Amino acid sequence: MSLIVQKFGGSSVKNIERIKAVAQRVCSAREAGKQVVVVVSAMGDMTDELLEMVYQISPEPTPREIDMLLSTGEQISISLLAVAIQSLGYTAVSLTGWQAGVRTENMHGKAKIKAIDVNRIKRELEKGQIVIVAGFQGINEMGDITTLGRGGSDTSAVALAVALKADSCEIFTDVDGVYTADPRILPVARKMDVISYGEMLELASSGAVVLQPRAVELAAQYRMPIHVRSSFNDNPGTIVKEVSDLEREMYVSGVTHDTNVAKLTVIEVPDKPGIAFTIFDALAKERINVDMIVQSTKAEAVTDLLFTISKDDSRRAVKIIEDLIPQLGAKGLHCDESVAKVSVVGAGMVTHPGVAALMFKALADSGINIQVISTSEIRISCLIDQSQVEKAVEAIHRAFQLELEPGEIPAAIDLL
Amino acid sequence: MSLIVQKFGGSSVKNIERIKAVAQRVCSAREAGKQVVVVVSAMGDMTDELLEMVYQISPEPTPREIDMLLSTGEQISISLLAVAIQSLGYTAVSLTGWQAGVRTENMHGKAKIKAIDVNRIKRELEKGQIVIVAGFQGINEMGDITTLGRGGSDTSAVALAVALKADSCEIFTDVDGVYTADPRILPVARKMDVISYGEMLELASSGAVVLQPRAVELAAQYRMPIHVRSSFNDNPGTIVKEVSDLEREMYVSGVTHDTNVAKLTVIEVPDKPGIAFTIFDALAKERINVDMIVQSTKAEAVTDLLFTISKDDSRRAVKIIEDLIPQLGAKGLHCDESVAKVSVVGAGMVTHPGVAALMFKALADSGINIQVISTSEIRISCLIDQSQVEKAVEAIHRAFQLELEPGEIPAAIDLL
Repeated sequence: MSLIVQKFGGSSVKNIERIKAVAQRVCSAREAGKQVVVVVSAMGDMTDELLEMVYQISPEPTPREIDMLLSTGEQISISLLAVAIQSLGYTAVSLTGWQAGVRTENMHGKAKIKAIDVNRIKRELEKGQIVIVAGFQGINEMGDITTLGRGGSDTSAVALAVALKADSCEIFTDVDGVYTADPRILPVARKMDVISYGEMLELASSGAVVLQPRAVELAAQYRMPIHVRSSFNDNPGTIVKEVSDLEREMYVSGVTHDTNVAKLTVIEVPDKPGIAFTIFDALAKERINVDMIVQSTKAEAVTDLLFTISKDDSRRAVKIIEDLIPQLGAKGLHCDESVAKVSVVGAGMVTHPGVAALMFKALADSGINIQVISTSEIRISCLIDQSQVEKAVEAIHRAFQLELEPGEIPAAIDLL
Repeated sequence: MSLIVQKFGGSSVKNIERIKAVAQRVCSAREAGKQVVVVVSAMGDMTDELLEMVYQISPEPTPREIDMLLSTGEQISISLLAVAIQSLGYTAVSLTGWQAGVRTENMHGKAKIKAIDVNRIKRELEKGQIVIVAGFQGINEMGDITTLGRGGSDTSAVALAVALKADSCEIFTDVDGVYTADPRILPVARKMDVISYGEMLELASSGAVVLQPRAVELAAQYRMPIHVRSSFNDNPGTIVKEVSDLEREMYVSGVTHDTNVAKLTVIEVPDKPGIAFTIFDALAKERINVDMIVQSTKAEAVTDLLFTISKDDSRRAVKIIEDLIPQLGAKGLHCDESVAKVSVVGAGMVTHPGVAALMFKALADSGINIQVISTSEIRISCLIDQSQVEKAVEAIHRAFQLELEPGEIPAAIDLL
């Protein structure tokens, strides 16, 4: 019997009606003869409501207690979904992260999954149960509840699919699949049928919120295909899988943007060895991911060190760096949250050196100033002013003619 | 170092302000040099809100999933209280039922505690932590979350106090202690300083909601003193402990009433052996407690079987018995929820045979009809019409002069 893992995010289970709809969907997969493991997030705004309560008590609640608190969100969803499935005449059992055997690192708030002991899930599947697992959470070796960080339910789903050797992993979301740009701000954006792990990872890392980057990494590592599709309809979505170069028809697959960016500038740091290490090591220890980094020599022996992080981390990062300022001998720290990042992603750009030039031209023609540039093999990102982000996405999407189906791209662009 | 277990119910933690007040209270016990284990219920109406959600999905959610759902209520409370205590500068750690080692029977919804593995709690206490435990919940041998039923947090607290060999167990509530009658309906009711386990058990079982009967039984079994006191002030409350006959000054300690009663009448059952067994065995299997039972012969070979249960169980009980009606050969079933039970409780009544007569006289003088009578060694209960319950409590309380302090009772009453 084939085994499928289905993941439903917070918007898919945001109220009782939506939970009932998800139950229908899960039962049709079961009806089609599949073993089904369902991973669910907390209902809609539940996580934010819980956080609001705890912040009324303390501005700095301890991470362990936040995890204890937040993990109740998925626990509520799994029990309600189990009841909804049972009321349709199917047998179902809900499992918390620890009951499902999800073992994580000790770190709270952003723990990584270390292993999954799937014995309990397998036993339940053998009994014919639909198994509903709380996403986003696990247990560490002290027996404490941990959470996986924002979007962690995607990672739970892929990790479970891998551990259970599932045939596929379906991620249900509020859009129809992965688009060439965010369809909410660019209606001409086109849904892709297939995308490679590498491109998906770059898209996800540079602002496409449809999938969590760590989930994509994990899927790539174990070659687990992910089907990203809508929880509102039966349309085929986008398959994230290994794509050979021969299959590839587009050299650029999409444009993403990310407004959840803060730009930090450490002003007038002495230009000597060890400075960057001191700063980025301190941030890494707190699990703060640094994205773009630029160091620009300002005057003799003094530089400005500029980097970007997620806005969610900016309060903590500012505190960490301000504490380091005396030790660094820097003049100060500036935090700017009015920036955004736009990126083009495409596995084909390695062999098309004109991509960067075309992107910069599109931005320049629209009067958009580029503050920072960073690149990977298959991605080019520009930091711009947040107020210009929609204009930038539109301009870049048009320049690369991403609204056209693969094969329709005129030769002219290929000349780049 | 002395060890104290403190239990705070749902009304004591119903909002953020109350949680902060509880944190203050806990920290003062710690400040006084005690090791503190705190047991907390779900916030205010949380349990009812969760139940309302699940009943929107199904009229008969499975007990396992209800337990999965409801146990989130206390998990939210413990994490918030831990944060509130930490924000006062003390170290604290929250533990769910399963983390605290509370092992229960497999039964969902009304599980009994089988054992508590206190290793984790002891380790945390040794580290100097204030330990906050989720009441009302545990884990069964399958690793599933169970709940202990209504008021189960009292039982959690007493069981933890026993298992940890605590010096005492404080139950904080919204009244000042145990009263001779419910002070909300009878303002002259008097707070008792001390009451025996046996009397407390009868009071609790017959409607005094201040303590859960199972918690009292457990405390009695292990001689654990319970201090019932207000969470709103520092007044001394009522100590529930072993009281020798010599210490006893009152032969009646209190009047209780219970409106959470349903009267079921199985009409015209054939009067033959095995009928009562069939009915009460079916109810017992579903953990429905039967209280008063009366069987009255109506005509030849036919009787009416009348009994009372908690209103909470009436829907389930009616269903169970209606299914049995054909097998029993009875004529039908009648369920009356407009009844109430008033009881007098007192360890001294064993040696004072006039107590029952005085109670019946007080009711008769007030024009109150008695539907059913039941007695134990230290309790007499009468089932009456619910609309007359306040009048009945007042009349009985006055007849026994319970508003007077022990020692002030005039000899006249003793003549009964």
